[in-house]
Amino acid sequence: MSGRCEWTVKKSKLARKTHNPIRHIIENLDLRPNPEKQMIALSIGDPTIFGNLRAPPTVIDALEDSLSSFRFNGYGPATGFDSAKQAIAEYTSTHTTPVYSEDVVLCSGCSGAIDLAISVLAEAGQNILVPCPGFSIYKTLAEGLDISVKEYKLKPENDWEVDLDDLERAIDDNTAALIITNPSNPCGSVYSDRHLRDIVQVAARHFVPIIADEIYEHLVFKGETFVPIADVSNEVPVLKCSGLTKRFLIPGWRVGWIVVHDRQGILSKEIRGGLQQLATRILGCNTLVQGAIPQILRETPQSFYDETVEFYQNNANIAYELLSVVPGLKPIMPKGAMYMMVCVDMRNFPGIKNGLDFVSQLVCEESVFPLPGECFSYPGYFRIVLSVPEEMLEAACRRISDFCDRHYNRKPILISACPD
Amino acid sequence: MSGRCEWTVKKSKLARKTHNPIRHIIENLDLRPNPEKQMIALSIGDPTIFGNLRAPPTVIDALEDSLSSFRFNGYGPATGFDSAKQAIAEYTSTHTTPVYSEDVVLCSGCSGAIDLAISVLAEAGQNILVPCPGFSIYKTLAEGLDISVKEYKLKPENDWEVDLDDLERAIDDNTAALIITNPSNPCGSVYSDRHLRDIVQVAARHFVPIIADEIYEHLVFKGETFVPIADVSNEVPVLKCSGLTKRFLIPGWRVGWIVVHDRQGILSKEIRGGLQQLATRILGCNTLVQGAIPQILRETPQSFYDETVEFYQNNANIAYELLSVVPGLKPIMPKGAMYMMVCVDMRNFPGIKNGLDFVSQLVCEESVFPLPGECFSYPGYFRIVLSVPEEMLEAACRRISDFCDRHYNRKPILISACPD
Repeated sequence: MSGRCEWTVKKSKLARKTHNPIRHIIENLDLRPNPEKQMIALSIGDPTIFGNLRAPPTVIDALEDSLSSFRFNGYGPATGFDSAKQAIAEYTSTHTTPVYSEDVVLCSGCSGAIDLAISVLAEAGQNILVPCPGFSIYKTLAEGLDISVKEYKLKPENDWEVDLDDLERAIDDNTAALIITNPSNPCGSVYSDRHLRDIVQVAARHFVPIIADEIYEHLVFKGETFVPIADVSNEVPVLKCSGLTKRFLIPGWRVGWIVVHDRQGILSKEIRGGLQQLATRILGCNTLVQGAIPQILRETPQSFYDETVEFYQNNANIAYELLSVVPGLKPIMPKGAMYMMVCVDMRNFPGIKNGLDFVSQLVCEESVFPLPGECFSYPGYFRIVLSVPEEMLEAACRRISDFCDRHYNRKPILISACPD
Repeated sequence: MSGRCEWTVKKSKLARKTHNPIRHIIENLDLRPNPEKQMIALSIGDPTIFGNLRAPPTVIDALEDSLSSFRFNGYGPATGFDSAKQAIAEYTSTHTTPVYSEDVVLCSGCSGAIDLAISVLAEAGQNILVPCPGFSIYKTLAEGLDISVKEYKLKPENDWEVDLDDLERAIDDNTAALIITNPSNPCGSVYSDRHLRDIVQVAARHFVPIIADEIYEHLVFKGETFVPIADVSNEVPVLKCSGLTKRFLIPGWRVGWIVVHDRQGILSKEIRGGLQQLATRILGCNTLVQGAIPQILRETPQSFYDETVEFYQNNANIAYELLSVVPGLKPIMPKGAMYMMVCVDMRNFPGIKNGLDFVSQLVCEESVFPLPGECFSYPGYFRIVLSVPEEMLEAACRRISDFCDRHYNRKPILISACPD
């Protein structure tokens, strides 16, 4: 029997504790663009919104074939169709690190994959380590589940490499997983083979499994090499999270996956079974797209990949060139992904209170909107996306330059807060 | 610092506590079909697997249009595109109960909608009430989150109406929600306006919100009427869960939704905000399909719906006719959905240990596989699906009949365990 005598329907702890910091920050920013200038949003990590970057014909054809076959309308297995998992295994395998279809779990988007990876390894009272600056979804997903988030520092002066001492200090007995984002959102960094080995050694010393957010894999500029962290780990188990999202320009399709890498069988008993169990909660991703995955992964030509990367790299060069001569700013040249972080030496802008106010005034005067570093736990920087059309990016950088010219302290403080 | 000195990676409590009872039962059943007879699976609630029931042309056309528009490849809002939500609101509105787009939250499948509805209303230590017999996903989702599940009885002798006394007894101070499945899986029952009002009164007396699993809405046989429970509730808030899954024959596309019905504003402060927060964890369902929703819901002709229902009803009649004359069996005629429950008077089958053994021997001798009632917390029954092709269903019923003839005790126990 119940003793209630009125309606009091409260949201659960999970709902109360689930926050999206980016949304929170943006909703509390004063963002009134200059009505005389067209708004240029450099804020959104969706490469499709400007219409200049489009999914390749292989993607569209593959989906059409899947649709017209009528073979992919029914339920799929909880972890995905074997044909899709087989194609993902081939796509992910390297010379040193073969992957098999039973290592693959299909998820609803890469954020679904990260959710599953965090949820299977960690529970209330434990913690996970995340990069700072870093993508806020890790926090959103973990804190809802009462898993705390500890940040380890990246070093902007070293192309955003992990501060290994800081990482090692952050590990404790309750650390359930270490998240590595490579290539990085928001930094655009791409780690070397050597640096990845160093990271893996820290994880090995403390017996901490790695969640590798590699959704930007292969999106690396000419001359750079993407090394999957699994390739340099003989011992430390890795749950690699990836998907079709960014490389194939279809983020809304929600196709992500986990690839389990576990040479020493450390995860086999517990975690593989746990992934299976958790997968029954969501019943996989859209089957139509699953039906299209083999064709997409096998038939998309190298030229499409090359052109996309070339576009981002060209935009990175343009933005770097235009912003590196702006007084008070220091862009950090990325090596991949689709973002650039720009340091703002706030002390040289006496009329601007802080990084949030910088963005707010920039929108107000120039109708240009980058994301403030606060969205990535990293005040003193802003992030711009490199997926906007070239002319738009140029215009945005010139407006940022005009804005800084107007606000820059003519007697600048000589010791910069930005990295050399 | 950490003091670990070896690898011990354990799965989280969420993973440990997430179980799919159906899978567990089936994996432990001895299911070796008779090699001389082709297997007929009457077990799977997926209407597309036999190829006889196909999504209508409007669905395929709408998806093609969405694909070729290139407008639905990017990220959508966390709760879905407004165009899709608007169409769902129209589709769901009734004369008495208007629905607006802000009442709709798109989810990954109807099971995703149920997950969200349970997750927002209930938390560890609380309980939810579920029907018995009932669909096992409620248990799978709730128990993973440490929410306990209390069953209330349905009455087979009254067309599976809710035992209202039993329901009322089950409610306690920790009851966070009452789940009503109408039309029902596994029963195929369809509740009258009057019975729904009685249920709502019990919920109102104890201030318990309702989660209405109405994924089989509109799938009701000729002469029956589907009444959304929201239509008869002025006070009790309802989170209605539905989707495209069953009616449009595309369960794998994972398109579900919650419609918030809350005339008295009981949920407004807490729960609507909580749904928004939880939606940021999953970022909605596949955008391509979201783009197709308006066309699917507005243009699918009544004739398609009618033909599907006619098909199920015809199969229900066939199975009922064939099985009701079988000694030891008593089918309960459904009024909708795509299932029929059949009572087995086990005491009349002396060579068969229990309901699981009944199914196991049926598979072994006749290669016919219905789901044992144990999958729905309801021993003494089995469930057959009505979506199989007519000839196949006939053959299956004849084989079940032969099986029972062979195993039936020629001196039957006269007082039946099955309802009159």
